[in-house]
Amino acid sequence: MGRTKTDHRPLILVTNDDGVTAGGIKALIEVVRPYGDIVVVAPDQAMSGMSHAITVKVPLYLSKIHAEKGLEIYKSNGTPADCVKLALNTLLPKQPDFVVSGINHGINSSVSMHYSGTMGGAREGVLNGIPSIGFSLLDYRADADFSTAIHYSREIFSSVISHGIEAGICYNVNIPKGKGINGIKVCRQAKGRWVEEFDERIDPRGRTYYWLTGHFENHEPEADDTDEWALANGFVSIVPCNIDATHFSGIQKLRESGIGQVSSHNIV
Amino acid sequence: MGRTKTDHRPLILVTNDDGVTAGGIKALIEVVRPYGDIVVVAPDQAMSGMSHAITVKVPLYLSKIHAEKGLEIYKSNGTPADCVKLALNTLLPKQPDFVVSGINHGINSSVSMHYSGTMGGAREGVLNGIPSIGFSLLDYRADADFSTAIHYSREIFSSVISHGIEAGICYNVNIPKGKGINGIKVCRQAKGRWVEEFDERIDPRGRTYYWLTGHFENHEPEADDTDEWALANGFVSIVPCNIDATHFSGIQKLRESGIGQVSSHNIV
Repeated sequence: MGRTKTDHRPLILVTNDDGVTAGGIKALIEVVRPYGDIVVVAPDQAMSGMSHAITVKVPLYLSKIHAEKGLEIYKSNGTPADCVKLALNTLLPKQPDFVVSGINHGINSSVSMHYSGTMGGAREGVLNGIPSIGFSLLDYRADADFSTAIHYSREIFSSVISHGIEAGICYNVNIPKGKGINGIKVCRQAKGRWVEEFDERIDPRGRTYYWLTGHFENHEPEADDTDEWALANGFVSIVPCNIDATHFSGIQKLRESGIGQVSSHNIV
Repeated sequence: MGRTKTDHRPLILVTNDDGVTAGGIKALIEVVRPYGDIVVVAPDQAMSGMSHAITVKVPLYLSKIHAEKGLEIYKSNGTPADCVKLALNTLLPKQPDFVVSGINHGINSSVSMHYSGTMGGAREGVLNGIPSIGFSLLDYRADADFSTAIHYSREIFSSVISHGIEAGICYNVNIPKGKGINGIKVCRQAKGRWVEEFDERIDPRGRTYYWLTGHFENHEPEADDTDEWALANGFVSIVPCNIDATHFSGIQKLRESGIGQVSSHNIV
C-alpha cells in the first residue's frame, strides 16, 4: 500500500461535480473535517456528466468564498478535474494527502464511472500521486438525505487514513439510498450499458432535438461480486479503479495477430 | 477475438473531437472509406479535452450536412461521446460494425487518454459492444499533414477488419509527426503526469485567471514497452485499453485491509 499514516495533520482536498453549493459536498466536508485541514475547490455550477474533461477554450478563475480555521472554500468556472489541477498548481502550499470527490447526487457504478465528473475529480488526484476517492449516493434529488452516506463515507475514509491506497488506484464508492444499509462490499465494476438514451422532441421552430436520458442495463445481474449487485442488495460498493487502462493480457495476443504487418515497414 | 470478418458491407461510424470540419476527420474518412459505408457524426465545434463527457444541461441537435453514395455526414452540438450515442440511438438503421474516432490534431498517449475527447468517442463505441479505435497524430496544427498518418491508420484498420477486437477493449493509436516512421508497436500506457499546468495572467479588471497549459513528464523514460517510448523512437503506438477499470488484483487486498470493519454493521 502507498502513503499511510502521517505524523502531521493531513491536508485534504475536496471537490465535486454538482457544484460548490450542493448538499453532497457539504456532506463530504462533514465526512473528512475531523481528519485534517480541508480545502474545497469545486465548480461554480453543476458539472454532471463532465467525466475527466478539462477546460482549454476559456481561462479559469478561482475565488475564495469561505474561510475559517481548518476550512477554506473556493469556487471555479472549471470542471472537477480542472478544480483539482487549480488546487495543486496554483493554490495549495504542498501536495494534499488526500483528494475526495462528491458526495455525488446520483450513482456512478459500473460503466457510469466513465461519464462521472465526480470520478474525473478523483482520477485527477491519483494521476498526481494522491490517494483519492469518489463518493456517490443513489439519490439524484437536490435535497437528498446524506446522513447515512456520511456515516459510511467516514468509515471508508477512516480506513484509507489508516491503510492508504495503492499507487495508481482510486476508489469508486457508491452508496444506496435510505437507512437500511447491510454493510460495505469490495466489488468489481459490473458489465452493462445504457440503453434507450434519448427523449426526442420538436422545438417551437419545428426542429427535432434530443434530451439525454435512458436507463442502465446490467449484463450480469446474477454475478454477486459486482457493484451493481452490491447496490441492489443494500450494500455500499467500493471498486478499486486503475488509472492505467492498458489491457495487459491483450498485448501479446495483439502482437501475435500481426497487426500492421501487411506493410513493408518494420514491425516491433 | 470478437467480431471478425463480416459477409456484408461494413457500416462504419466516424467521429472526432476537433469538429466536423477538421482536417483530421477528413483524413480518417479517407482511411476507412474503402472498407464500408461511412456515417460521420461529429461535433459542430472543437471539443478537445472533453474526455468522455456527455451533455445533460442542454438538448442535442443533429443535422445532415453532406450525403453521397456510401458517405453521410452529420454534425451535432454534442461531445464525441454524445455523437456516438446519437448515431446509435437516433440515426443508424443497425449497430455499426466499427467506430473510429479522430484523427486527432495532437497526441493522446499515456494518461492523456483520460482527457481525450477522441478516446471518449472510441470508448463510447466499445461500451456499446462495437470494435472501436481512436487515432491521434502528434501534430496540433490545424493544417497538419495527415498523409503518413492515413497510411498507418489504414494498415491498422485493415488488420482490425480481419481480426476484430476483443470484447470490452478499444485501441488507442498514436502516430508520430513526419514521414520517417519506423513501424507499428503494440504498447502499454506509459506512467507519467502533466506538470506546471497553468499560465497565470491578470485580466483588464485586475482579476487573476489561468490558461491550462503545462507539459507531460514521462515517469519511466527508459522502459521500451510504453507508448511514450514508441512515439519518441519513431513508431506508431497501439495500446489496447480496457473499459473495465477494476483493479482486480487489489480487490482481495482491499478486503483483507478490513475496510469498513470499524463499524458495527455487517461487512461482506
